[in-house]
Amino acid sequence: MLSYWNNYPTIQKKLQTVCLQIEEQLTVRNKEIQNTLIEFSQAGGKYLRPALFLLFAELAPHSKKDEKQLIQIAASIELLHMATLIHDDIIDDSPVRRGNISVQAHYGKDIAVYTGDLLFTEFFDLIIKAMNGSKFLEINAQAMKRLLLGELDQMHTRYKKNETIEDYLQSINGKTAELFWLACVEGAHFGGTDHATEKLAGQIGHDIGIAFQVNDDILDYTADSNQLNKPILEDLSQGVYTLPLLFAKQEAPEAFRPYLEKKETISYEDAKQVAELVIIYQGVEKAKQFALEYTKRALSTIEQLPDSQGKQTIYQLTKEMLHRTY
Amino acid sequence: MLSYWNNYPTIQKKLQTVCLQIEEQLTVRNKEIQNTLIEFSQAGGKYLRPALFLLFAELAPHSKKDEKQLIQIAASIELLHMATLIHDDIIDDSPVRRGNISVQAHYGKDIAVYTGDLLFTEFFDLIIKAMNGSKFLEINAQAMKRLLLGELDQMHTRYKKNETIEDYLQSINGKTAELFWLACVEGAHFGGTDHATEKLAGQIGHDIGIAFQVNDDILDYTADSNQLNKPILEDLSQGVYTLPLLFAKQEAPEAFRPYLEKKETISYEDAKQVAELVIIYQGVEKAKQFALEYTKRALSTIEQLPDSQGKQTIYQLTKEMLHRTY
Repeated sequence: MLSYWNNYPTIQKKLQTVCLQIEEQLTVRNKEIQNTLIEFSQAGGKYLRPALFLLFAELAPHSKKDEKQLIQIAASIELLHMATLIHDDIIDDSPVRRGNISVQAHYGKDIAVYTGDLLFTEFFDLIIKAMNGSKFLEINAQAMKRLLLGELDQMHTRYKKNETIEDYLQSINGKTAELFWLACVEGAHFGGTDHATEKLAGQIGHDIGIAFQVNDDILDYTADSNQLNKPILEDLSQGVYTLPLLFAKQEAPEAFRPYLEKKETISYEDAKQVAELVIIYQGVEKAKQFALEYTKRALSTIEQLPDSQGKQTIYQLTKEMLHRTY
Repeated sequence: MLSYWNNYPTIQKKLQTVCLQIEEQLTVRNKEIQNTLIEFSQAGGKYLRPALFLLFAELAPHSKKDEKQLIQIAASIELLHMATLIHDDIIDDSPVRRGNISVQAHYGKDIAVYTGDLLFTEFFDLIIKAMNGSKFLEINAQAMKRLLLGELDQMHTRYKKNETIEDYLQSINGKTAELFWLACVEGAHFGGTDHATEKLAGQIGHDIGIAFQVNDDILDYTADSNQLNKPILEDLSQGVYTLPLLFAKQEAPEAFRPYLEKKETISYEDAKQVAELVIIYQGVEKAKQFALEYTKRALSTIEQLPDSQGKQTIYQLTKEMLHRTY
């Protein structure tokens, strides 16, 4: 889905190179799995995270840059993202990913476990090649750790009656915002910006990540499955209670209790009832407001970045990306 | 099971420090998972791979060493091993690991996926801390990649009628010998030996790994489940055809055909029949011979190592470890 970048030809061209770098990295003896991974890397993904990385790397246009290194790091970020998606699909029993059949549905969960592991390795292999000796190696390992802790937090709060908004934020902080944070801060660093800009980049990445995930969670309550390429009310049925539900439940806990008490046995009809309640009790509205605040904060931090072509593009992209149609 | 090392007090003491290093590394918000991982790291494992690493690091007694670094690397090797075990148990549906309930049986496959991922991250985190800037970072990433390719090879040849001994060797090369290779070569390197010794160390590790895995595969046909803490004929039932079966099948393909054609539907009674055939057609005997040759080759390479206390210990340990009771 690099067509998403039709209005950003410079970044689109770079992302094509990132795509080739990923393809080159994915050489596996088993050609069937190799082809699946390459298809997966090319189908449907917008490459948002590597794009942010590359845009932040452009903030200091006069710094000397190692273009090969930048492409390798951009590719590593997408590989890490792909690895987590493959393992997420095992957990969620997802039949579909990026409009195609998911690895777990196609090859079974067993192969999906090792395939995800393999991508984690490719991620490390690539960053080690790109930046051996840099303090950012350690930062990458720690970011990946926080990402997995976020996933584990989410597992831990499944079907939890008294899950708080704080629990939710802690989980999405790790599982989503962390990788956006990494992409932006790493871009600024390897693009040769100063330390202050690097810090701003991190804040922007974090806020974009939170807004992005909240928007995604809203879609579970509002989009139809056709539009999203994924089954709707999936999170809810699997006991993942996201922000719209948590806001609505604060308003009328008694209305939700009988449904949520059913836990794993909740039917699709019940889930649809819950979704209606979420809308009635302003859960979606409040979550949209919440995401909007993070978006606004990101935009205002972007304004503080040093003036450059890159800054304008980041601003425009953030607006487009986060003002989604629900 | 550090009692395995009662006759090697020096190495036992170091392994206790490795154990503490692992415990320190495993700090997770979810205390239940943290405790499970710590218990897992302490229960039953012999720490063979870190022990080999530490022994090879002693081959150059007069070289300057960074003891803290050596402990970190030794711990990283065990963490990588633990991560693969947790994911293997998902694939094998194993209820038991190291005499305890497996992570997947205790917490479900979902948590086991992320828990294994977390250990992969801890592995990388630790080696990056221990050796940022070293060429061995890249070697580690590549070793992990070959390890996963070995696992994928094994998945790929499941229930494959015409699996060859070459297929089998390729798979165990990756999934087992690779980590033994890494432990030995890395030990020699960070212990400060010369390049020639490093190379010998790698050959020894590889040969020990092959012999070790073949021995393990023989146990699937000979040990009782009590002795091994794992269900017997597990590999066979899951379509993993190991060396004893492959040797026996060469001898009498027709005898095995009706059983193997049943694939996933093979019963436990059938599997017991196959095990008897494997013994009748000398499969176990030939596999023992095969393992013995690798053991002998390892021992004769060990003799070429520079004289030192470490060399004697490696020789003695290799003999003990590989002359198992079947």
